[in-house]
Amino acid sequence: MSERRPRYRLTFACPDRVGIVAAVSGFLAEHGGSITEASQHCDAASGWFFMRCEIDAATLPFDGDGLRQRFAPVAEAHGMRWQVIDNITPRRVVPLVSRQDHCLTDLLYRWRSGELLAEIPCVLSNHEDLRAYVEWHGIPYHHVPVDPDHKAAAFARITELIDQARADTVVLARYMQILPPEVCARYPGRIINIHHSFLPSFVGARPYHRAFERGVKLIGATCHYVTDQLDEGPIIEQDVVRVHHDDTVDDLIRLGRDVERTVLARGLRYHLEDRVLIHGNKTIVFD
Amino acid sequence: MSERRPRYRLTFACPDRVGIVAAVSGFLAEHGGSITEASQHCDAASGWFFMRCEIDAATLPFDGDGLRQRFAPVAEAHGMRWQVIDNITPRRVVPLVSRQDHCLTDLLYRWRSGELLAEIPCVLSNHEDLRAYVEWHGIPYHHVPVDPDHKAAAFARITELIDQARADTVVLARYMQILPPEVCARYPGRIINIHHSFLPSFVGARPYHRAFERGVKLIGATCHYVTDQLDEGPIIEQDVVRVHHDDTVDDLIRLGRDVERTVLARGLRYHLEDRVLIHGNKTIVFD
Amino acid sequence: MSERRPRYRLTFACPDRVGIVAAVSGFLAEHGGSITEASQHCDAASGWFFMRCEIDAATLPFDGDGLRQRFAPVAEAHGMRWQVIDNITPRRVVPLVSRQDHCLTDLLYRWRSGELLAEIPCVLSNHEDLRAYVEWHGIPYHHVPVDPDHKAAAFARITELIDQARADTVVLARYMQILPPEVCARYPGRIINIHHSFLPSFVGARPYHRAFERGVKLIGATCHYVTDQLDEGPIIEQDVVRVHHDDTVDDLIRLGRDVERTVLARGLRYHLEDRVLIHGNKTIVFD
Amino acid sequence: MSERRPRYRLTFACPDRVGIVAAVSGFLAEHGGSITEASQHCDAASGWFFMRCEIDAATLPFDGDGLRQRFAPVAEAHGMRWQVIDNITPRRVVPLVSRQDHCLTDLLYRWRSGELLAEIPCVLSNHEDLRAYVEWHGIPYHHVPVDPDHKAAAFARITELIDQARADTVVLARYMQILPPEVCARYPGRIINIHHSFLPSFVGARPYHRAFERGVKLIGATCHYVTDQLDEGPIIEQDVVRVHHDDTVDDLIRLGRDVERTVLARGLRYHLEDRVLIHGNKTIVFD
Repeated sequence: MSERRPRYRLTFACPDRVGIVAAVSGFLAEHGGSITEASQHCDAASGWFFMRCEIDAATLPFDGDGLRQRFAPVAEAHGMRWQVIDNITPRRVVPLVSRQDHCLTDLLYRWRSGELLAEIPCVLSNHEDLRAYVEWHGIPYHHVPVDPDHKAAAFARITELIDQARADTVVLARYMQILPPEVCARYPGRIINIHHSFLPSFVGARPYHRAFERGVKLIGATCHYVTDQLDEGPIIEQDVVRVHHDDTVDDLIRLGRDVERTVLARGLRYHLEDRVLIHGNKTIVFD
Repeated sequence: MSERRPRYRLTFACPDRVGIVAAVSGFLAEHGGSITEASQHCDAASGWFFMRCEIDAATLPFDGDGLRQRFAPVAEAHGMRWQVIDNITPRRVVPLVSRQDHCLTDLLYRWRSGELLAEIPCVLSNHEDLRAYVEWHGIPYHHVPVDPDHKAAAFARITELIDQARADTVVLARYMQILPPEVCARYPGRIINIHHSFLPSFVGARPYHRAFERGVKLIGATCHYVTDQLDEGPIIEQDVVRVHHDDTVDDLIRLGRDVERTVLARGLRYHLEDRVLIHGNKTIVFD
Repeated sequence: MSERRPRYRLTFACPDRVGIVAAVSGFLAEHGGSITEASQHCDAASGWFFMRCEIDAATLPFDGDGLRQRFAPVAEAHGMRWQVIDNITPRRVVPLVSRQDHCLTDLLYRWRSGELLAEIPCVLSNHEDLRAYVEWHGIPYHHVPVDPDHKAAAFARITELIDQARADTVVLARYMQILPPEVCARYPGRIINIHHSFLPSFVGARPYHRAFERGVKLIGATCHYVTDQLDEGPIIEQDVVRVHHDDTVDDLIRLGRDVERTVLARGLRYHLEDRVLIHGNKTIVFD
Repeated sequence: MSERRPRYRLTFACPDRVGIVAAVSGFLAEHGGSITEASQHCDAASGWFFMRCEIDAATLPFDGDGLRQRFAPVAEAHGMRWQVIDNITPRRVVPLVSRQDHCLTDLLYRWRSGELLAEIPCVLSNHEDLRAYVEWHGIPYHHVPVDPDHKAAAFARITELIDQARADTVVLARYMQILPPEVCARYPGRIINIHHSFLPSFVGARPYHRAFERGVKLIGATCHYVTDQLDEGPIIEQDVVRVHHDDTVDDLIRLGRDVERTVLARGLRYHLEDRVLIHGNKTIVFD
């Protein structure tokens, strides 16, 4: 892993009009800021404009807060939803898991290898199964059983743990529980799920069984933001893999695991690099 | 195109039990028949067995009818649904089209180049648009308008033309009409459709518009046999292509055209080479 | 095909320094120009900066020449190689072919359907085979035999025809002759070839045979600009398809045809939409 | 992981002639053996025939040795190279690694989850880096430094450890040392390497750097059997991933890691399920 060069990531969304890029790039140039990467998108139907750019931090005469302070008037003038985030401070990511470990193993590998710019303050689970593996990494593991008769208490505890961990992002890494609406609403655009089908096919439970029964020739996985509509949130990333008539449901599950972890890793990476902007129920992904 | 070596394709389905392959391969060996390709599949849930093999015609001391006559007792003893087809006699394929020509252009190219072992006795359409291109190929073009108030008459005429053409296979190459149930029932396992979505996502009309609205990251196409359940027939082949947030509906339609024609070409090829066996609402594809 | 909204495409390359985007977007904003799409790239190793943007023509108070005239000082101040091209004037594309028609058929289909923003003033070939198909499209066909003993004369004639056709772009659509260095040099960055392998594997002749002998599990195609180094020019696009142990060389050739035409179509589209900038022996593709 | 039903895997290669399948399937039917899966291939150029079949062990009245004993005369009569292996006894797989852990992490995950039917008696490395992770899994870790001046001693020790471990298969999971010819020769068809390029492109060192310099649009990985010809052994599996002009060498290395581990996992799975038959410098893969 080569040393990471400090950068600021500026992202914003605002009503489209002439001069936005000029205003932003003019502001940066005025202060000597060197843009190392930039992407724009204009949504013609809604008339909204979206932009993400990375600025070499060393070329600016102030720090992140200074940048925010000086950029605020530009943002206000254009009615922007915006943020400036550096690429040095690791995000705080809390995975929720059940018994299956393929997505978690993959996340921990990428974290361990420095590929994922994130800290993992803890892992939450409704089972004990993955404790030893998580703790070997030096990461605290909290077991919060979800008793069907006392779900509210369980999710209150989960919310408390997420908040204590000061999580930026919650990852449902094959967490087999449906989050109640109030938990979804508490972390808007901050809960990422991996669903084991190519949505909108096979919303809900047992998608591999239903894919098998329908006789599809490709199965897939979908990484999306969680909303209170089950499997209906904004899609970040999807992919598929080919299956054959001699593949059993078990084969589909096995092949699907590889797609799930890959799609989740890509989606989470986009999210952590601030490459994803949510627009209604869709995403702009500046990959 | 290299000269094609004459072969027989034997395909069958029967209840699974010990000794089927031995019976079939023993029968062939007894007559000196050289198997050049063979595939088997056992469906554990239903207890059915499926097989396809190709036999070098020159190694047998009789012709196709002789083979059928001698194989019949073996087939009967095992309760087979079966057929023997040679790879020399071209199938008779009738495409039905509307105004869009991307699938038809692709089929005609593959026919012209000898890649598709088929004759095209005629093309049927509810529009005049593609007449000149079809007729340049020396293929008759029949315009059968489908008046919403006189659909029965139109489909009676279409059925008549299909029958006159002695079609083995009907291809809905982006034909924008829904076939009535009696037409579907008349040609079971012989009508192939290309649907412009990754089924079971976006069954029905305007799938690209709905894919755009849902914000999926891949769009697809599905080649399937037509039944009287719209877009619910056995799937032969599917594929997808990646799309981005800056792709408009028009872009999706454009990108989709390439997937549609590719998926249709592969599905039709499998069908014409007798590689597809239908089992309930699924297919076994010995590719 | 929906009506195309007039746009200018500005592309440039220049030494990287702070303020380039500000200068360009400031210039455009000053004249009311609305940027509908923009992409940038900075090559860290060489210190060069590359940009492409599309401007809604209706938002500017002058035409393309007016834009060029006013932008010239900005370009000069930054040492840019640059051009402004509109998306309305069709490019003039001349395909060179031999006997195989899969790439040409695909190009003509895309041209016919309006998908390719191009005119095809003529097709050149060293064989007569494809004359009828080309002429059906109303496109002149010039047969220029390439006699091994009189190559210079043949290529002089080809050059003459290309020049008479005022071609912007020459496409070697499986043209089985090697262009002499002086022809390559005459049209720098304007001759596109489709090579039937995943370069740099299998440079030169008979790549499918060599892929078969090596036992690779994927075969591919490469679309690249032609230079006087055979199969060594800047790569625009590549793709692959899976092959199996039972695929013969003929199967590889057949499967390869589909990849070749797809890769050529994508590469040519990028080129015609001014999405490709050449940098040394590599390309920046703003797709 | 569902319980595995005991099966025998019979694989063989022999000169092609009429009656081989009949002889094998007749032999099995005679003893009541139920074939659950079968694949054949005839290599026309060499006149060799290859077959793999799985037989439900419970349907045979004898065990694996009984099967081998009774099948031997059939095999001899047809001049077969053959083997019968059950699907219950785990293979003994020894990974060799250096400092990079992505392939090893993936193998250990698949082993841990029961996806890989294998025991891992130990891991060998020329570095200490991965000891803790390996030992957490309860697997012995042997550090064998490879001093450039005493390579022979190091590889003698490695050979000794492989032999003590009674390894069926050696996996070079990004082992950054070239095995000497005598080690390659000692385990023919039993050493599997993952090479970080789409061979035959970029044979040898630093393939990602060379891919970057050439400007390819896809990078890949190749799983192959090791012979004494560097990167020239029979290819088992390959795959690729798309890269863009803004990907640095570090990005290529990162993206490549995912392809490497996937390709290695698929290749090793095929090998461990006896789906790979070597024929000259190519493989038949009955996937």
